[in-house]
Amino acid sequence: MPNKFVIIGGDAAGMSAASKIRRMQPSAEMVVFEKGDHISFAACGIPYWISGVIDDGRKLQVLTPEIARNKRGIDVRTQHEVTHIDPGKNKVSVTDLATGNIFEESYDALLIATGARAARPPIPGIDNAGVFTLRSLADGHLINNYLADNQIKHATIIGGGYIGLEMAETYRQLNIAVTVVEMLDQIAPTFDKDILEKVTEHVVENGVDLRLDTRVNAIEKTDKLVVKTSAGDIPTDMVIVSTGVRPNSELAQAAGITLGKSGAITIDANMQTSVPNIYSAGDCAEHKHLVLDEDIWIPLAPSANKGGRVAGENMAGQATRFPGILGTAAVKVFDYTIAQTGLTEKQAEQSGKYAEITTATITGGSRAHYYPGSMPVTIKLVVEQSTKRLLGAQIIGKADVAKRVDVLATAITAKMTVEDIGMLDLTYAPPVSPVYDPIHVAANVANK
Amino acid sequence: MPNKFVIIGGDAAGMSAASKIRRMQPSAEMVVFEKGDHISFAACGIPYWISGVIDDGRKLQVLTPEIARNKRGIDVRTQHEVTHIDPGKNKVSVTDLATGNIFEESYDALLIATGARAARPPIPGIDNAGVFTLRSLADGHLINNYLADNQIKHATIIGGGYIGLEMAETYRQLNIAVTVVEMLDQIAPTFDKDILEKVTEHVVENGVDLRLDTRVNAIEKTDKLVVKTSAGDIPTDMVIVSTGVRPNSELAQAAGITLGKSGAITIDANMQTSVPNIYSAGDCAEHKHLVLDEDIWIPLAPSANKGGRVAGENMAGQATRFPGILGTAAVKVFDYTIAQTGLTEKQAEQSGKYAEITTATITGGSRAHYYPGSMPVTIKLVVEQSTKRLLGAQIIGKADVAKRVDVLATAITAKMTVEDIGMLDLTYAPPVSPVYDPIHVAANVANK
Repeated sequence: MPNKFVIIGGDAAGMSAASKIRRMQPSAEMVVFEKGDHISFAACGIPYWISGVIDDGRKLQVLTPEIARNKRGIDVRTQHEVTHIDPGKNKVSVTDLATGNIFEESYDALLIATGARAARPPIPGIDNAGVFTLRSLADGHLINNYLADNQIKHATIIGGGYIGLEMAETYRQLNIAVTVVEMLDQIAPTFDKDILEKVTEHVVENGVDLRLDTRVNAIEKTDKLVVKTSAGDIPTDMVIVSTGVRPNSELAQAAGITLGKSGAITIDANMQTSVPNIYSAGDCAEHKHLVLDEDIWIPLAPSANKGGRVAGENMAGQATRFPGILGTAAVKVFDYTIAQTGLTEKQAEQSGKYAEITTATITGGSRAHYYPGSMPVTIKLVVEQSTKRLLGAQIIGKADVAKRVDVLATAITAKMTVEDIGMLDLTYAPPVSPVYDPIHVAANVANK
Repeated sequence: MPNKFVIIGGDAAGMSAASKIRRMQPSAEMVVFEKGDHISFAACGIPYWISGVIDDGRKLQVLTPEIARNKRGIDVRTQHEVTHIDPGKNKVSVTDLATGNIFEESYDALLIATGARAARPPIPGIDNAGVFTLRSLADGHLINNYLADNQIKHATIIGGGYIGLEMAETYRQLNIAVTVVEMLDQIAPTFDKDILEKVTEHVVENGVDLRLDTRVNAIEKTDKLVVKTSAGDIPTDMVIVSTGVRPNSELAQAAGITLGKSGAITIDANMQTSVPNIYSAGDCAEHKHLVLDEDIWIPLAPSANKGGRVAGENMAGQATRFPGILGTAAVKVFDYTIAQTGLTEKQAEQSGKYAEITTATITGGSRAHYYPGSMPVTIKLVVEQSTKRLLGAQIIGKADVAKRVDVLATAITAKMTVEDIGMLDLTYAPPVSPVYDPIHVAANVANK
């Protein structure tokens, strides 16, 4: 039984593991090294903090180092960077960034929960003042300060994914003109393009200058910033680069730990890496995709939280399995919510695993048609033709979108067919759903 | 292959079957006999029509006999009562209520979709003017006319189930004082009492005079109505009797068709009764309960619609199974929604099927705690201790209640354990859910 635990990274996965280990082994020696100043913060809330929807950034701190230490008995050391893992000697090298002190720490079991960082594409000028990424609380502070200290009349967002869309809404709420530049021919590239038509219109109707199929070549700084694109120059006051994230897996790689093809760390169902007493969880790790039945890197908060907890249980001696992920996700886009689970049509085709794929896209009402406030809900199902098994679902609408995706995420986890789904006994009452929920309608159409 | 179809009853189950048969056999002979004036109406919308939330009762008519005939090619005869089934001769006796004509109609396959009627408990005075039940559009018209023609200042509702609660809200919206008299010690008796505490308070806070543990002995008519109860007299202007429903199974019983212990018609997974070419669907039939794995009578619109369709498919020669029901249901109670699926604790205990039952009740936020508008959502899970299998769930709250029950209905259908549910990959975004949805929290607590 290990009795000395070291955890690298104090965000969701690391602190979930630490909390679990502390509860299971109250007297074990354990230390959490966190490179930054903050632990356990709700990164997903940052756009809403910048917009003012959330009034105080401190609300995003789920846990402070003080509370972790005093209330949970977890020794968290912020500003401590682990620079090297020696799996042979079961030791890590640590630099205290405040003092410059370097020291070693031994472990019986180690968790790598180093997370992911914002991608910084090789755009000339990306380091100019006024150009930001958005990943950490520190990024949020920098952006808030820049907005306070400068007269920002126009912002440019590079990348039309989740963060880009959320920040576009944030700028519009701040009454700042905003241009979104996206290299691809669609926003939200984890979705199929066809289901996003109305959402894309909605983004434009909300005053966002949306430039699809547009590549950024450089960000120039003269008296103001100029984003040079394949379709012309965009003079602007500040730039957000939201072009995805990269796994912080270099430390693991240097220690000889196996990485997956995404570059994130390979783990098994017990969150164990290729080195038996080294575990990984969170955004630095791949997870098993429950539909593809292969490892995939989709770094999202729910798997970081659950996976961290499972890692902690395994490290503390209780074998527990993390079954895997579906890439289930939701994002608010002005009045719309868009949400997805499992494979898109694109992904299903690209996987090469399915001889024939059928899709069904329907629009139904969120409530009984005669009940006031019913909103259109559009569902796209992706189905393996031969088995009728549901592979994935995407839903857009202005009401009750995310939870309908949750129903379908549950159905996919259970390997249900569209016939099974068409027969699900779901709630019905005029104010909450039609007698055939749009889920049923979509499943029945896909079953034809 | 049958080529002459007779359907008794033109509501959800009957018309679903007829529509399916017509699509599958465009030239087959088929007739639908409906005793009343209306077909396919949304009974669940009636309280909202009376309150004025739905402005026009015609919106509740899903289908009129004219549209059924002209657009769907279905020969619907309203005001036609089937009075006798002769399974030996494959004939039914029909009375045309408009003309008094009596005739026989032969069939190759027959569907009994006679539905259910409002229970009329043997209360002296239940037939007095001003005393109503609420089941059909005709009932809705009678109540609306009575409200228009009389100065109603106070109404009394006998029975605090779904309809009673919806009508209590309706009266409050009409600014009419209302007393609800319930024999049991709780409202919404299909729920466990403990989860309803806040909802019960909320009903009272909304001005409903709620009398639990109170039995109605008589309804007297002097100059006004007086509801005589075990706890005193309630002078009132009108009375709604909402004490449940009874299956219209007498016709089937008289034909020697097997009934279940509830008194509703026994059917198999193909919706076939004990007579091979006689099918049944809707509120007059029992259905298999997916948790109890035995037949149960829970007459609700979703199973009537789906079961009718399945009956039609089987009658038209395509073997299709109706898997069963969970009793999933939701009702709006002023600002709250209460919803349930599977077994309550009470039902699980009474079933005698489970050596030990554990429950977990938790309250979580509907959204991330830091995001504005997050509402408390209280979940009660009922779990078989030995297997950790989820047997049932009840949720109350002011937001996102019904769809969370749908997630759990799907999980129960898939026979998931609370461990499986704790690991479900559900949507997360601050505006739609916390990173651990209350569903996860409840499952994790139940798993301990």
